[in-house]
Amino acid sequence: MQLIHPTLLLDEDKCQANIERMVKKAARQQVAFKPHFKTHQSAVIGEWYRSMGVKSITVSSLAMAQYFADAGWEDITLAFPVNVRAAEDIDQLAQQIQLHLFINSPESAKYMEGRLTRSVGVYVEIDTGSQRTGIPAEQESQVEDLLNELKKCSKLAFEGFYTHAGHSYKARSREEVQSVHSDTSDKLKRLRGKFESEFGPIKICIGDTPTCSQVEDWNGIDEISPGNFVFYDWMQYQIGSCTPDQIAVCMACPVVEKHPERNELIVHGGAVHFSKDFIETEGVRTFGQVVALQDNTWEKPIENVYLKALSQEHGIITAPSDFLAQVKIGDMIGILPIHSCLTANLMRRYMAEKGKLITCM
Amino acid sequence: MQLIHPTLLLDEDKCQANIERMVKKAARQQVAFKPHFKTHQSAVIGEWYRSMGVKSITVSSLAMAQYFADAGWEDITLAFPVNVRAAEDIDQLAQQIQLHLFINSPESAKYMEGRLTRSVGVYVEIDTGSQRTGIPAEQESQVEDLLNELKKCSKLAFEGFYTHAGHSYKARSREEVQSVHSDTSDKLKRLRGKFESEFGPIKICIGDTPTCSQVEDWNGIDEISPGNFVFYDWMQYQIGSCTPDQIAVCMACPVVEKHPERNELIVHGGAVHFSKDFIETEGVRTFGQVVALQDNTWEKPIENVYLKALSQEHGIITAPSDFLAQVKIGDMIGILPIHSCLTANLMRRYMAEKGKLITCM
Repeated sequence: MQLIHPTLLLDEDKCQANIERMVKKAARQQVAFKPHFKTHQSAVIGEWYRSMGVKSITVSSLAMAQYFADAGWEDITLAFPVNVRAAEDIDQLAQQIQLHLFINSPESAKYMEGRLTRSVGVYVEIDTGSQRTGIPAEQESQVEDLLNELKKCSKLAFEGFYTHAGHSYKARSREEVQSVHSDTSDKLKRLRGKFESEFGPIKICIGDTPTCSQVEDWNGIDEISPGNFVFYDWMQYQIGSCTPDQIAVCMACPVVEKHPERNELIVHGGAVHFSKDFIETEGVRTFGQVVALQDNTWEKPIENVYLKALSQEHGIITAPSDFLAQVKIGDMIGILPIHSCLTANLMRRYMAEKGKLITCM
Repeated sequence: MQLIHPTLLLDEDKCQANIERMVKKAARQQVAFKPHFKTHQSAVIGEWYRSMGVKSITVSSLAMAQYFADAGWEDITLAFPVNVRAAEDIDQLAQQIQLHLFINSPESAKYMEGRLTRSVGVYVEIDTGSQRTGIPAEQESQVEDLLNELKKCSKLAFEGFYTHAGHSYKARSREEVQSVHSDTSDKLKRLRGKFESEFGPIKICIGDTPTCSQVEDWNGIDEISPGNFVFYDWMQYQIGSCTPDQIAVCMACPVVEKHPERNELIVHGGAVHFSKDFIETEGVRTFGQVVALQDNTWEKPIENVYLKALSQEHGIITAPSDFLAQVKIGDMIGILPIHSCLTANLMRRYMAEKGKLITCM
């Protein structure tokens, strides 16, 4: 299959191995596995999970929930603080599937209780340190107020606490990830201990790929919902969640210019393909890691060859002279994305073996 | 019109005024106006240009060229170093319209000459300091080699030099933008002076919004192809290219959480809506500027209220207590994007007055 334009290659074997590894780990640890589908956004890839026994999934937007409901998924958690303006569509979806919402404030609870005609499951998001969404774990009275409000609601069935330990993305070793996890799970278990007798049973669900990939003991955790692990990416490798050869997606980009005098190549592959996420190490930004590419499959990362800048359609690759000497205008360069979720969201389709196209929502 | 989800609002009056201002400026300065359509990517918005007399346009990808050719545009410049792997599709498009390519190396010239069956116009891109694409202006012998190669080609009709003075984006005053422009145009005019007797006539085309918006004297310039000015954005305001009330697009995002204890709001509006572009000033990153929003139209920027971080679907807004006190969960917040091109590319449609939807390619 001759590639012409920037193309997101998918290695099905690596991807299915990533899924299988997490399915088995969850089974071994006796936690429910509710994978996040925001990374791949594809009904076809969803089927790979289903064939391994997965029945419940997690998504990050109502549109994504509707797409996967239409693809036959009957148990979906919308892992985003409920948008009360969408109450009518949420109610409609709740008639079609078993829907679980995040309700993180008494205001949202009251509003949704007044609008829903069907019952939904409810998670309360706890902020265990990422300072994004949820009630801070130490604000026990806020948690209690919300649980009391939920108790009054006939449409909102409280199920448990959810946390996205987003601060695990700052970790750069297994020890640091383990430490984030221990702290996170201690906080959640303390809250459960405090409230279970009055509001229980209370499930604990955690959702980040670094923790789910690297931690071996999930004692006290009931459910996990990682997403990125399905593909991984260069960021997850930096965090220690995967090896480079577990990364299941790779951008192929055509070389359009060579600039040996400044040790650079220009490829067609920019912010509209990769997203502008980067890793910054000692002031150096990396927007993608170059790998050897052969016949639409890729091999090892090549040291010191990486995307150093992106504009809308352009990518600038920095490379030593010996690498540049082997590259011609018109060659395809393989590049591991920094953040596969955002790259997949932009590309909206994958090319698998033998040119097979796999589409997204 | 009740907004529910993150929505990219478009103020048609502002947008059309931005177009008209640039059309008139180009006419006044007697330069050809070949606007870049990569910002809006919409055939509907293209018609607004056409109604003001625009006949030639610029795009950044072959897919975009094909889309606008199908929308009836007959003169299109593909302002990206030619991807030789796409020669067959380029040749097909050249049969449909008057196509102009960027050919920046003898290798690309030879390759395309061997593949094309129809004639195309050719610009040679000159790097006047942005260090992205094109032959560095001081490398006169490289320019000469390429012009000699093009002279031998029967399908490649050399038309002129093009530059994208991308370094104007680092400017923060009219004087700095003027200085980038003077330097850029001096370099291009020197090259033209050197080569016109042998290879001429040679057109000079410049393409960046800061220069085209802020410079008043385009002496020696033949064509301009800015794109971003159609919407502008918070970045262009920082550069001095526009006033805040000339910015023609605004994201409307629902508030899903309030965190008064840390002076923050959470909105549905993340990297998949805005892109991850930011402005960094003294270590503070801004991913969007909050404005007052009323009935789907927006007003002034609100000081000290801005998007401080984005994840896939979440936006974190920082705001003083008095602002937070007025906001409720379920309200819509208006946010001017940092980089309207990337935001439009992600959103793929605009909501104009009375809920009218305008789609993109």
